[in-house]
Amino acid sequence: MSSGGEKKQLVAVSESRRFMIDCFKAVNVPQDHAEQMADLLVAADYRGHFSHGMNRLEMYLNDLAINSTDGSAVPKILKETPSTAWVDGCNGLGAVVGNFCMDLAIKKAKQVGVGWVCAKGSNHYGIAGWYPMRAMKEGLVGMSMTNTSPLMAPTRSKEAALGTNPLSLGVPAKDDKFLLDMATTAVAVGKIEIQRRKGAPLPDGWAQDPEGRVTNDAELAFQTGCLMPLGGPEINSGYKGYGLGGLVDILSGVMAGANYSTKVRKWTHTGANTAADLGQVFIAVDPNCFAPDFEERMCDFNSRLRSCTPTDPEKPVLVAGDKETINMKAVDEAGGIEYLPNQLKTCESLSQRFNVNPIRFI
Amino acid sequence: MSSGGEKKQLVAVSESRRFMIDCFKAVNVPQDHAEQMADLLVAADYRGHFSHGMNRLEMYLNDLAINSTDGSAVPKILKETPSTAWVDGCNGLGAVVGNFCMDLAIKKAKQVGVGWVCAKGSNHYGIAGWYPMRAMKEGLVGMSMTNTSPLMAPTRSKEAALGTNPLSLGVPAKDDKFLLDMATTAVAVGKIEIQRRKGAPLPDGWAQDPEGRVTNDAELAFQTGCLMPLGGPEINSGYKGYGLGGLVDILSGVMAGANYSTKVRKWTHTGANTAADLGQVFIAVDPNCFAPDFEERMCDFNSRLRSCTPTDPEKPVLVAGDKETINMKAVDEAGGIEYLPNQLKTCESLSQRFNVNPIRFI
Repeated sequence: MSSGGEKKQLVAVSESRRFMIDCFKAVNVPQDHAEQMADLLVAADYRGHFSHGMNRLEMYLNDLAINSTDGSAVPKILKETPSTAWVDGCNGLGAVVGNFCMDLAIKKAKQVGVGWVCAKGSNHYGIAGWYPMRAMKEGLVGMSMTNTSPLMAPTRSKEAALGTNPLSLGVPAKDDKFLLDMATTAVAVGKIEIQRRKGAPLPDGWAQDPEGRVTNDAELAFQTGCLMPLGGPEINSGYKGYGLGGLVDILSGVMAGANYSTKVRKWTHTGANTAADLGQVFIAVDPNCFAPDFEERMCDFNSRLRSCTPTDPEKPVLVAGDKETINMKAVDEAGGIEYLPNQLKTCESLSQRFNVNPIRFI
Repeated sequence: MSSGGEKKQLVAVSESRRFMIDCFKAVNVPQDHAEQMADLLVAADYRGHFSHGMNRLEMYLNDLAINSTDGSAVPKILKETPSTAWVDGCNGLGAVVGNFCMDLAIKKAKQVGVGWVCAKGSNHYGIAGWYPMRAMKEGLVGMSMTNTSPLMAPTRSKEAALGTNPLSLGVPAKDDKFLLDMATTAVAVGKIEIQRRKGAPLPDGWAQDPEGRVTNDAELAFQTGCLMPLGGPEINSGYKGYGLGGLVDILSGVMAGANYSTKVRKWTHTGANTAADLGQVFIAVDPNCFAPDFEERMCDFNSRLRSCTPTDPEKPVLVAGDKETINMKAVDEAGGIEYLPNQLKTCESLSQRFNVNPIRFI
């Protein structure tokens, strides 16, 4: 946010993308792969998910600079049936592996109704919703899931043993859509960090202290690194969120023969010294294989939800993806993305470090 | 529970099953369908989920007695591809439709890797976990989801517009397993009823009052009938539980061309006067299509979770399905199921109403 009399510094979506492409190319990522990563990251910023956008650029670059990710790697198919494929990401970039797998799932869904593709040897793949969006463009229903570094404490556990393990479902609906993209923890680490910077307490059910108790202390929560599953404590059915985190890891990491649970490395800001070997799954389903007029019904489904009487008349009932649509519209109207000053400082230093043209503002 | 000096009245699993078969046959359900329903319901009681077992028998019988469910109906395939099928349940019994669809999904998974079967025209299908268990027996990963009568208020809404919409994932793992079966609401109605009978307050995040605020008043919550999604209020990410409830309805009701959202009827104790036309989805995936030695890794995955240091040494960390395994072992050791006295009274009256041999105790 800009404060007081300062002029807002806005970055056009295309300029944010250009800057990221240049940075990736500076660490020897081929043009095509650099574009795929930049498209993924700028989409997150455009949609308002800054934690998964340019904010991650430096971490990816660090991983590439020390070769713990292979920026040139091309995924390969290890095993195939009419509706499935097992893919080795060959330690390539997340978007490169993810796009490859989702496009393969789409192809299979068009041929036999469902495509189900598991990848091992992958890396952090950004917003989970990116991949289902590719299926939606083809009139298909898409899903994707990934495991991540351990950060969630299973119900009753003092220690973290699963990641934030997000899952995403994208559903086309004529001019409308349903696009769910959620971590299976109560909140992402980013939300803890925001409370910490504000010096504000955490609500119950977000995070644990080192003894495994619910904590409201943002600083302690940040140091402990034990997020609670969706639902929070056991009395509020946190074991369901824990179960969902398990579901994601089984369908991605375990099934793909990648790392899973506590086998997944910790991911640090300076870059890791081992390959992540994350597991991911990409599913596409052709709704035309079932009842006709699917997208018409989806529009009606969404409108039944949105037309519910709100508790607070100022806050209308939303459908998954509406918040992001509102954010994209605001960016379009403003003409660009308003990054946090800290983010822009990081970009300045990246620009110097990699000898890349600095970001131009509107 | 038996109190004081009373002797526990235990019912053998086989006797509970016999009684339910006789009841279904008394309302003209064919032997085979009666057995499928009894197997489903007694499995719930055996596993400790009494709300979904014999507790539901009277409601099913009421629906059958007034012909709002067709006990003889046989599901039929409307459309097929190598990996999908669209099935019309023809308003048949939930277990009959569900078993038919899951077995079809299993067959397709064995042939092409994945089977994805959607049913419309179905009825309440009991515990969602029943169907994945059929896939697990064949060494496959199974999933099932169903929509249900509106009971969950979307985040920010005063009114209910989705059901408790459960989802289940069953994963084989040699002598072990992972079996998740969860409603996407914070809790099921049964838990509200229990607090109400005890005269105890509800924890935050379970249910809403008529104004859409979180309530701790069990009586008010029961009358209002607005459960909160998994996660509870918006600050605790209840919108994720709401999104998951939407995911289930889209993949079951909307995709199958069945009822969905507020189109699903209210289900009353005395039986409904219209067909439910519920939508359900059944998915089977062959893990052999991906990395070899899947079940070995699943055993390791489970053991990594169970070996986490517990917050309370008396409460070990569990994996989805462990609680039910413990309950089944307890039933086996006791020699039978201990039903609540109210349940046994209902059985007595059903025995008289339908002229069926009363339940014998051990």
